[in-house]
Amino acid sequence: MEIRHDKIDLELRKWHAFIYKSTANRKNLMKTRAAVAWQAKQPLTIEHIDLDGPKTGEVLVEIKATGICHTDYYTLSGADPEGLFPAVLGHEGAGIVVDVGKDVKSLQPGDHVIPLYTPECRECKFCLSQKTNLCQAIRSTQGQGLMPDSTSRFSLNNKPLFHYMGTSTFSNFTVVPEIALAKIRPDAPFDKVCYIGCGVTTGIGAVLFTAKVEAGSHIAVFGLGGIGLNVIQGAKMVGADKIIGIDINPEREAMARDFGMTHFLNPNNEADIVDAVVQLTDGGADYSFECIGNTKVMRQALECTHKGWGRSIIVGVAEAGAEISTRPFQLVTGRKWEGTAFGGARGRTDVPKIVDWYMEGKINIDTLITHTLKLEDINEGFQLMKAGKSIRSVVVY
Amino acid sequence: MEIRHDKIDLELRKWHAFIYKSTANRKNLMKTRAAVAWQAKQPLTIEHIDLDGPKTGEVLVEIKATGICHTDYYTLSGADPEGLFPAVLGHEGAGIVVDVGKDVKSLQPGDHVIPLYTPECRECKFCLSQKTNLCQAIRSTQGQGLMPDSTSRFSLNNKPLFHYMGTSTFSNFTVVPEIALAKIRPDAPFDKVCYIGCGVTTGIGAVLFTAKVEAGSHIAVFGLGGIGLNVIQGAKMVGADKIIGIDINPEREAMARDFGMTHFLNPNNEADIVDAVVQLTDGGADYSFECIGNTKVMRQALECTHKGWGRSIIVGVAEAGAEISTRPFQLVTGRKWEGTAFGGARGRTDVPKIVDWYMEGKINIDTLITHTLKLEDINEGFQLMKAGKSIRSVVVY
Repeated sequence: MEIRHDKIDLELRKWHAFIYKSTANRKNLMKTRAAVAWQAKQPLTIEHIDLDGPKTGEVLVEIKATGICHTDYYTLSGADPEGLFPAVLGHEGAGIVVDVGKDVKSLQPGDHVIPLYTPECRECKFCLSQKTNLCQAIRSTQGQGLMPDSTSRFSLNNKPLFHYMGTSTFSNFTVVPEIALAKIRPDAPFDKVCYIGCGVTTGIGAVLFTAKVEAGSHIAVFGLGGIGLNVIQGAKMVGADKIIGIDINPEREAMARDFGMTHFLNPNNEADIVDAVVQLTDGGADYSFECIGNTKVMRQALECTHKGWGRSIIVGVAEAGAEISTRPFQLVTGRKWEGTAFGGARGRTDVPKIVDWYMEGKINIDTLITHTLKLEDINEGFQLMKAGKSIRSVVVY
Repeated sequence: MEIRHDKIDLELRKWHAFIYKSTANRKNLMKTRAAVAWQAKQPLTIEHIDLDGPKTGEVLVEIKATGICHTDYYTLSGADPEGLFPAVLGHEGAGIVVDVGKDVKSLQPGDHVIPLYTPECRECKFCLSQKTNLCQAIRSTQGQGLMPDSTSRFSLNNKPLFHYMGTSTFSNFTVVPEIALAKIRPDAPFDKVCYIGCGVTTGIGAVLFTAKVEAGSHIAVFGLGGIGLNVIQGAKMVGADKIIGIDINPEREAMARDFGMTHFLNPNNEADIVDAVVQLTDGGADYSFECIGNTKVMRQALECTHKGWGRSIIVGVAEAGAEISTRPFQLVTGRKWEGTAFGGARGRTDVPKIVDWYMEGKINIDTLITHTLKLEDINEGFQLMKAGKSIRSVVVY
């Protein structure tokens, strides 16, 4: 693939000039292998890029393994209106601290870590509210593909590359703010616990941290991909009673049963999937989880919950501009419509616990990692995802 | 108004025959004055109708006063798809127990009571869930305009009249199931506390029982009619900080400030009412309440709440078939969309407390009752409501 750098527009050139002016005295410049996304809808290319050392409050991490997630694909596809190129994607990694910048107190070289696209500063209004995990400390620069000081650590041929979700785990070495790193136990295998950086935590956390499902509950899970399967094992972990899985793909049934699903429904075989759930649960599910990103399914997920107390949690990410709708009567009669991001998990606090649960055998990750690849084969991982052939592909550096 | 009884259709005649067959041995038949709704869009007429005595588990109540509520108007207007005629409307009353049927244990003649359109049996799945006030013990017959044994106590010229919401407080005497009566203190004035039978409890309860607003919260109230004003005084009662009232009618501002509103916004004077609330609250309201029944306003109410933890409670009743919609991103970023019916109050448990609060001066009802009427003038009360001239009209028998 030939990269047409001459196509980069004038505004981007101006920005480059600004960034380089402001980072003129760079130190600790190193080389790292990375898969670079140059533009939407194009395969990633493996490059030896330049990486600046960590600045104040930042940490240099050697990524040992990274999952390939639908969100990376969503951005690469061009569907994400906030997607930026060229960038180093990847947000589901695990690795080892190599170096720390000034004022970093909680981490030191050698610590094993999982980068967090949802940080936990423990100081902002959001963290202190104790009502949400959506720390906003570095939200604006992260959304701009930059570190908190509004510059990038990545570059190639003196042209900066954007960071992605504050993590950029498709680079063998990356720089991450201290508040966006969860310190984990050193005996956890990187090629498995990297998945806790997104999918596992999103699914299990939706059950444990967002919904706080009680033992004996009836739950309905729409979509039995990686997230749905983790919702199911979360529900099993907390002692849910009926765990109903719903998917149009009958091949998903067997693995879902292994993870704890007690009943399977295929919408293609049901006259009315909402009514089918209501019948199975004596009035409706206590909790439902939409794990697809389809706004029509989100409505079904709400309406199949129990009058008076049903809660429906949106986990899936819908396409830009899509809207959910229902009759307000559904809410006035006691159903609640909610959502979750990163499973409601406070990354530095909860991610190490989930790693422990994996190491103690409380949750299964191994079965979900269906493919392991080298960085050079990362595009194959995206193909497997698109074709529905993988639950999760993991790149091992 | 001439009633064309010959127009009553054949099916209704068959039903009459069935009912009368099943209630052949009626006893304790008495006469009572009542305002009867013969058909949609027609004024009520005052009649001396027949009332059967209370059966097992039922109570005969002398209604001393009743409010006229938007829900009565909604049914009378013909917009309610479940509206039944001919019927005795009214659901916001207060009165005295006159007689009790077999097996009634918690009430005796002389007790002061408020009828409950949402009963509290304390035995059904819903009551025992401790998660909802929507007792379903007599839901199906109540929806059919009948007592729990599927018959009516009201008739005129041997033709039955439907009950309404299980209460029918537009009759001077009415029969109500024991589980649908809240026993209140005997010194509370009927012509004021009748309003606790619906409007007061719906508004205050939405704040206290459904949202459980904490002291220091910022709240936004859309619609400053009777419900909205009660939401405001509920928010003041629990120590909310900013209490923002929103209405297109500037005349509502003064009374709302008396009830505790701290900031007034008129959508007609704001470029973007959602943004105006967000600016006033440093990021959004912690809780919002839609007290109009307008699905577009319901969306504004959701979207003006705070990222991460905002909760929007739908209190207003939308027209049949109307739908709410939003981008799922609003929920995934931590807002919750909920509703409330009867303010989340468990009637027999909570209504007596609210009567106490009124008697102790914690809440103001007197100012909200702008008109007091005789039963003969009940149609005037509906006119005042339609014209927006009353907050609440009360009929005193």
